Amino acid sequence: MNELDPPARAKGRRVKSAASEQKTERKPVAPALPSQDGRVIIENVAPEIDGGRAAAKCKAGAVFTVEADIFSDGHDVLAADVLWRKAEGDGAWSRAGMAFVDNDRWSGVFSPPDIGRYLYTVEAWRDTFASWRRDTQKKSAAGQDVSLEIDEAMTMLEASKADGEDAGIANELRARISDAGATDRLEVLLSAETAALMSRIGPRHGVSHRAPVLELSVDRLAASFSAWYELFPRSQSGDAERHGTFDDVVAKLPYIRDLGFDVLYFPPIHPIGRTNRKGRNNSLTAGPQDPGSVYAIGSEAGGHQDVHPELGTIESFRRLVSAAHAHGLEIALDFAVQCSPDHPWIKEHPEWFDWRPDGTIKFAENPPKKYEDIVNIHFDGEGYPGVWYALRDVILFWAEQGVRIFRVDNPHTKPIPFWRWLIREVNSALPDVIFLAEAFTRPKMMQKLAKIGFQQSYTYFTWRNTKSEIVTYMTELTGEMADYYRPNFFVNTPDINPYYLQTGGRPAHLVRATLAATLSSVWGMYSGFEICEARPVPGREEYLDSEKYEIRNFDLDRPGNIKDHIRALNRIRNANPALQDLRGFLPLLSSNDQVLVYARLTPARDNCILVIVNLDPYNVHTTQYEVPLWEFDLPDFAAIETEDLLNGNRFVLYGKTHTITIDPAQGPVAIWKLLPPSWRAGA
Amino acid sequence: MNELDPPARAKGRRVKSAASEQKTERKPVAPALPSQDGRVIIENVAPEIDGGRAAAKCKAGAVFTVEADIFSDGHDVLAADVLWRKAEGDGAWSRAGMAFVDNDRWSGVFSPPDIGRYLYTVEAWRDTFASWRRDTQKKSAAGQDVSLEIDEAMTMLEASKADGEDAGIANELRARISDAGATDRLEVLLSAETAALMSRIGPRHGVSHRAPVLELSVDRLAASFSAWYELFPRSQSGDAERHGTFDDVVAKLPYIRDLGFDVLYFPPIHPIGRTNRKGRNNSLTAGPQDPGSVYAIGSEAGGHQDVHPELGTIESFRRLVSAAHAHGLEIALDFAVQCSPDHPWIKEHPEWFDWRPDGTIKFAENPPKKYEDIVNIHFDGEGYPGVWYALRDVILFWAEQGVRIFRVDNPHTKPIPFWRWLIREVNSALPDVIFLAEAFTRPKMMQKLAKIGFQQSYTYFTWRNTKSEIVTYMTELTGEMADYYRPNFFVNTPDINPYYLQTGGRPAHLVRATLAATLSSVWGMYSGFEICEARPVPGREEYLDSEKYEIRNFDLDRPGNIKDHIRALNRIRNANPALQDLRGFLPLLSSNDQVLVYARLTPARDNCILVIVNLDPYNVHTTQYEVPLWEFDLPDFAAIETEDLLNGNRFVLYGKTHTITIDPAQGPVAIWKLLPPSWRAGA
Repeated sequence: MNELDPPARAKGRRVKSAASEQKTERKPVAPALPSQDGRVIIENVAPEIDGGRAAAKCKAGAVFTVEADIFSDGHDVLAADVLWRKAEGDGAWSRAGMAFVDNDRWSGVFSPPDIGRYLYTVEAWRDTFASWRRDTQKKSAAGQDVSLEIDEAMTMLEASKADGEDAGIANELRARISDAGATDRLEVLLSAETAALMSRIGPRHGVSHRAPVLELSVDRLAASFSAWYELFPRSQSGDAERHGTFDDVVAKLPYIRDLGFDVLYFPPIHPIGRTNRKGRNNSLTAGPQDPGSVYAIGSEAGGHQDVHPELGTIESFRRLVSAAHAHGLEIALDFAVQCSPDHPWIKEHPEWFDWRPDGTIKFAENPPKKYEDIVNIHFDGEGYPGVWYALRDVILFWAEQGVRIFRVDNPHTKPIPFWRWLIREVNSALPDVIFLAEAFTRPKMMQKLAKIGFQQSYTYFTWRNTKSEIVTYMTELTGEMADYYRPNFFVNTPDINPYYLQTGGRPAHLVRATLAATLSSVWGMYSGFEICEARPVPGREEYLDSEKYEIRNFDLDRPGNIKDHIRALNRIRNANPALQDLRGFLPLLSSNDQVLVYARLTPARDNCILVIVNLDPYNVHTTQYEVPLWEFDLPDFAAIETEDLLNGNRFVLYGKTHTITIDPAQGPVAIWKLLPPSWRAGA
Repeated sequence: MNELDPPARAKGRRVKSAASEQKTERKPVAPALPSQDGRVIIENVAPEIDGGRAAAKCKAGAVFTVEADIFSDGHDVLAADVLWRKAEGDGAWSRAGMAFVDNDRWSGVFSPPDIGRYLYTVEAWRDTFASWRRDTQKKSAAGQDVSLEIDEAMTMLEASKADGEDAGIANELRARISDAGATDRLEVLLSAETAALMSRIGPRHGVSHRAPVLELSVDRLAASFSAWYELFPRSQSGDAERHGTFDDVVAKLPYIRDLGFDVLYFPPIHPIGRTNRKGRNNSLTAGPQDPGSVYAIGSEAGGHQDVHPELGTIESFRRLVSAAHAHGLEIALDFAVQCSPDHPWIKEHPEWFDWRPDGTIKFAENPPKKYEDIVNIHFDGEGYPGVWYALRDVILFWAEQGVRIFRVDNPHTKPIPFWRWLIREVNSALPDVIFLAEAFTRPKMMQKLAKIGFQQSYTYFTWRNTKSEIVTYMTELTGEMADYYRPNFFVNTPDINPYYLQTGGRPAHLVRATLAATLSSVWGMYSGFEICEARPVPGREEYLDSEKYEIRNFDLDRPGNIKDHIRALNRIRNANPALQDLRGFLPLLSSNDQVLVYARLTPARDNCILVIVNLDPYNVHTTQYEVPLWEFDLPDFAAIETEDLLNGNRFVLYGKTHTITIDPAQGPVAIWKLLPPSWRAGA
């Protein structure tokens, strides 16, 4: 590499240069010419996740914004396009112009029409005619002679090839110019019409193709906007002594739909093992009537592609799926990659599991804790690739039964390459399948699962309770993470009975449901939340008498339930675009740390929801807060019409700063729609 | 891409799956197996500039720190190495262990010994034996039977191949274990000695090679630590009527060295054109005695590889270079890629220039302004590649005369690919050559020039005057930019006579010199600053009667000069490692916005300089400020011995908070060295 490119000229009259000395040592191969590529610089394209190693996400039909730093040497006028196409096949690139924003930053948009994988990139060039136009305008304005400039422009116009409609425009312009005198000629050449034509057909100098080609994963609406309801089918008989069936769930569909949910999610519905079966409240020994943990999958009745015999059959499951669809509900299934010691796979495919030196199977463990009702799949060694295909086939099997959403249990304890492959594999065949990562682990692993393809992710929301915790977390989620991470804010799960709900009663449930439903475009609850069921295993975040280990029957009409509020939340979400996309979170000044005030806004500022939450379930609080008039370019003294979305009242807020007192016993939250004057004029 | 990988097993007993349906459509090619690569995730490697598209920089022998997010599924113990090697050739990778920091972040270091280009990357794996050890320790502590675990460990130890010294250790351990009873055997297997051996020879599962291979440019010390002095050789005769010579500069060397500078930089020293020559104060018509602008390079006397006849000859220039080296000074030359209309290249190589339709040469312009004493090189079209080679040969020519530092004039108006190629080309032959980018333009272009190879860069320092401006700018420069951008803080240049200096007199010069010399490890001044010469062209940042257009003679001993202070600054810099590296800037609390207080610290905290600057050249100010005791783990009430580096006084500061009053007339700055107790103990 100590060689130098050849000097282009012989130069004898000067002192012998280091270069010519070097030349004598060069091997007789033709060196490459210096690269001229990259004169127009395109950098810092956004979104670009991990240097382009992961795909961004958006929903079909949505506006997808691409930004980049674009600049070049000197002072030439630049122009740029954003380019996109489907990732599969050899389709042509579509393109749209980008606009200069500020500080060498440019921005452009496109709307991918269909779900699937897309590629996008940025192209930029030096616009020779536009540079000529800017300079000649200045010279002409300064009274300088521009006859040579006119010649230069004529040459450019003559040399530019136009197709289709542009050919006619170009010919007409050329004719007008050749007929005109010098003054008129300049006027035509400097006209906006000529500028517009030449921006399309004029010379493009140094077109840069150095921008990275990035991937975009385009999903259907449910990936980014949906409301989930979770229940245990076996608890739906209306009798804790009787095992519920899929038909019992069918009977429950109107109830769930009436609450406004659109995804109905079941924990595992498969046969449950007998060996080391867990009893009630996770006890190590099960009684003869204990149904076992739904996560101990597999028995003599079958495994991951079978249903628990007492729930029904594949046929009754299909009936349930159809009935759900008829109610506007989608079914989501749990995908838990683990087996009870009785799973048929263990005999059929011992090589898919880990064995001890004494020939016994290796149980799941977190030393010194042991989980002897569960064995884990061995993803490498002899299990590879057989068990990978088998697990993919499980997904495809349930997809064939009409399921298109899978909540994946503990994905962070299985290899990342497996998930990357599985999701790509399934989505290649069925691009409408959505995977939700149930990973409650360290932040970087949770982010990684989203980066390698999970369309939705659980979050730390259940443990973010104070104002600063919530604002900090929302700021993180709605920043760069929003390019690839779609949070699903569950207020509770069968595994998480948050202390705040255990102790805060009905007001706490109203608070958390409101936060989840208005902070995140995807939210969910686990059955029982709507009746404020929160009795814990003392000192733990577990539910007492958890449905994970036994059949329960709740009175869903019991007094103090918050069904009306949940129904209202889902109604408000469906009516307001600001709540249908994660982005657009605006924390607002609030003088009292117990009162959280925020707005949710669309990018166009044509929908704005103001939410005020007293986070303290026990005490009345007063706060001084700000209404974000500035977002609508309104002065601080402006009046803004406001609708209370919970009770339909209308009133006017005068000015930016207001005071409110909230009694949690009367209702700890307010959800208002702001109606700035400009919207009323348009309405 | 709608194909699926083959199921590994025939499965007839279940409902026909979507996968098997897909199979019937598959083309008869063997699909690739799913990739298992990347089970251990390595992400967010730092430094990684623009997704690995640009090289990081460090100095030879310095500690270079590499960080990465490293994690994997499940709970296995991980291990990681940082790897590095010379970029050229096929040398083996060196490696050093990385350590866990926090939140899945790991860190490792190495010290590249020589200048040149290196590659570095990160490797990580699941450490099977370490995982076994951690789990078995827990099980054993819980009293569980671990006989199977002992068998598992024995198998691992037997299977591990050891070389060299490790072979002996392994054999000895195996012998001890086979002789021991079960309890002793466990003890040996769990010992730190076994752990250390197995970390080297034990099984490494899922070794990840997915981390990017990144580039590191290693430069000599002068690239990151030096003090520059700029002068016009033609002004060094001691007589404004007589053109100075290189020999006159030789006579000036002791003066410059005595001030403590180590780089002596000249504006262009080449023949100056006659056509459209600029007169005094940039007037459009030169008088017969006006020497012209040094930037109008080229006349019948020669071009870029010639010296102005009145300065001397190549031989006298070489004598000057030798004399400078003998004084411990390096010569830096200006590389201005532009020509006067009389440059020999215009006749020899008309294709290297731009011509108008009427056959005249195109002058430099910024419409409607014209610069008719200058024509620009045309880098593409017919100029390529000939003029590229010629310009490279200019650098190599001066390198042959002993010059190893080039200050490049206005690089942002020439193509980025040219600079990328030129710097790489020159450094491949002469890795000790340093290029300084004189780009005063938009931030992203300035950063880009550093990313593509400029070892040093000019900055916005001359326009950062207030406390918040300085702290904000330093925070930016010492953040991620410091991985590739080496600022050279010039206090003034022939082009920049800052308003602050024009109006602030001697105190202003003391302030700015102190800031430049103690904020940045590279700083510089243009001759005349030391005597507070700041008379401006009224209302402009230009010097009156600028040396750019005429020969000047200054009295460098005139009263009010600040030479003693400059000498002290360079002495303090040379004695204190904290001032020899850009990083380690710590702004400190100061109650008065006119008083800037900061510390400069080494990473090891074994050198700490506290600087207090009254930024207001006119008024006495008092401030309450904090001494950073916490950086040395000292309590807020600790006493710390302190040395005033400007006058040698020693005193003790008691506690964290102090008050100081500074009269700019008495000296607007304090520079103290903090001597925490731990260092005194070591001293």
